[in-house]
Amino acid sequence: MILIDGKATAAQIKAEIKDKVEAIVASGGRRPHLAAILVGHDGGSETYVKNKVLACEACGFESTLLRFEDDITEEYLLSEVARLNDDASVDGFIVQLPLPKHISEQKIIEAIDYRKDVDGFHPINVGRMAIGIPAFISATPKGILELLRRYNLETSGKKCVILGRSNIVGKPMSQLMMQKNGGDSTVTVCHSHSPQLKEECRKADIIIAAIGKPCFVTADMVKPGSIIIDVGTTRVPDSTRKSGFRLCGDVDFESVAPLCQAITPVPGGVGPMTICMLMMNTLAAANHEYYK
Amino acid sequence: MILIDGKATAAQIKAEIKDKVEAIVASGGRRPHLAAILVGHDGGSETYVKNKVLACEACGFESTLLRFEDDITEEYLLSEVARLNDDASVDGFIVQLPLPKHISEQKIIEAIDYRKDVDGFHPINVGRMAIGIPAFISATPKGILELLRRYNLETSGKKCVILGRSNIVGKPMSQLMMQKNGGDSTVTVCHSHSPQLKEECRKADIIIAAIGKPCFVTADMVKPGSIIIDVGTTRVPDSTRKSGFRLCGDVDFESVAPLCQAITPVPGGVGPMTICMLMMNTLAAANHEYYK
Repeated sequence: MILIDGKATAAQIKAEIKDKVEAIVASGGRRPHLAAILVGHDGGSETYVKNKVLACEACGFESTLLRFEDDITEEYLLSEVARLNDDASVDGFIVQLPLPKHISEQKIIEAIDYRKDVDGFHPINVGRMAIGIPAFISATPKGILELLRRYNLETSGKKCVILGRSNIVGKPMSQLMMQKNGGDSTVTVCHSHSPQLKEECRKADIIIAAIGKPCFVTADMVKPGSIIIDVGTTRVPDSTRKSGFRLCGDVDFESVAPLCQAITPVPGGVGPMTICMLMMNTLAAANHEYYK
Repeated sequence: MILIDGKATAAQIKAEIKDKVEAIVASGGRRPHLAAILVGHDGGSETYVKNKVLACEACGFESTLLRFEDDITEEYLLSEVARLNDDASVDGFIVQLPLPKHISEQKIIEAIDYRKDVDGFHPINVGRMAIGIPAFISATPKGILELLRRYNLETSGKKCVILGRSNIVGKPMSQLMMQKNGGDSTVTVCHSHSPQLKEECRKADIIIAAIGKPCFVTADMVKPGSIIIDVGTTRVPDSTRKSGFRLCGDVDFESVAPLCQAITPVPGGVGPMTICMLMMNTLAAANHEYYK
């Protein structure tokens, strides 16, 4: 059984990015610059943004963090987005979600210049990715594809079952896995309204679980020799931990892992890859890889 | 067995559109206006465009056909697209595909103002559709969803197998069929690299065949009581016809139809719905239903 080490892979990719950045700087170029907008004081968002800033340092990027209080108006936030759109020194930026309820997330996302949309949430990037032309691809699905590739796990012609149909994981993952230049798999998407879910899983060569239910995928749902990618990160109360919780994936790792060809752990699997893919997108933005 | 009559359904929808248009005109409004750009003299394209003009008449729309020779430059075609973008009297327009090889179809499509992109091919519309927010949806997948709805065929929780992963049918169809506000089905996409194709079909409650191989889906691949949607329209030589050919679907209708709960014939099934959906999109454009 191969334990897919997302932490080591992410470290490797960040080192590769840093090498490229130092080469750019050595030849007189400017360091890639990622900006992040953080509204309010949500614990999860604080952690994510802090990790993004650290990843920027690891990659040799410049980073800027813009913080605003919860009571920022939509109009003011839109003006900040416009300012970053126009700032030639910023290659890419993200607006950390979720936003306070009085602000339309979709409106903010669509206001971001798609050429700086390193989160890949703008409809132009979502659409280009679906069509199969170069675009910023959102971090989680991009990271999963990268893990499968770096571990030389064959996906072409395989039956891939995706659990969950969210806009940030399930849907884009399905598009990437079905494309000829992507996974080239036979893709099935199951969700909360899928009575066939267990049966589909049992036939799967690859399961990508992004359904947000701790330990949902059990040994009886998995075909021996399959590849299991676990996107779940639910916080489960755990009094033995200092934090009071532990992260729990969508897969019952203990029972499933012995059956698998390969599996990602939680934590340390898909998670570390996501911020790393954001760094990859930022480098691509700085290099104008997808857009002029 | 229900024979899904696309021709009658399309006629019904066009009559509904015409009623709405006459109500608009009666209250002092302007008739919706669809423009089409046709480059060259491809036989199929000529027929499609002619039928679009006729459909406009049936719906009470104004229509404009702009014709150019095969040797039009990309630059000139882009300037024509820009002119239609700026023409306030045009609500929506299409550029009939395929285009001559010296012109980038993707470049032309992306030059169309997405608010007038009634074909739904612009990445913004593709992306918004994928995200599940209002957008122009391309004609074939939209027409199939409309047929399923008008025939009250249950799709929620059903296993839907889509054959083909093209950008104009397979991929958008998969997104629409999996969405909670769309088909809400468990969706599997099979294609030329799917060894599981037959097995998947045999488990399907709904098969949407868009693989472009005449009579590919045979009785042994179909579960009794399933719903079969046939998107195929291959021209097969037929000396008994005046035209010298007949249209052949992807489904072996003779053997499959007796097994089905419902099936679309070819011709007269999905085909007539597509132009009708273009009319629906044009009315939506005139009414600014999706964009201001």
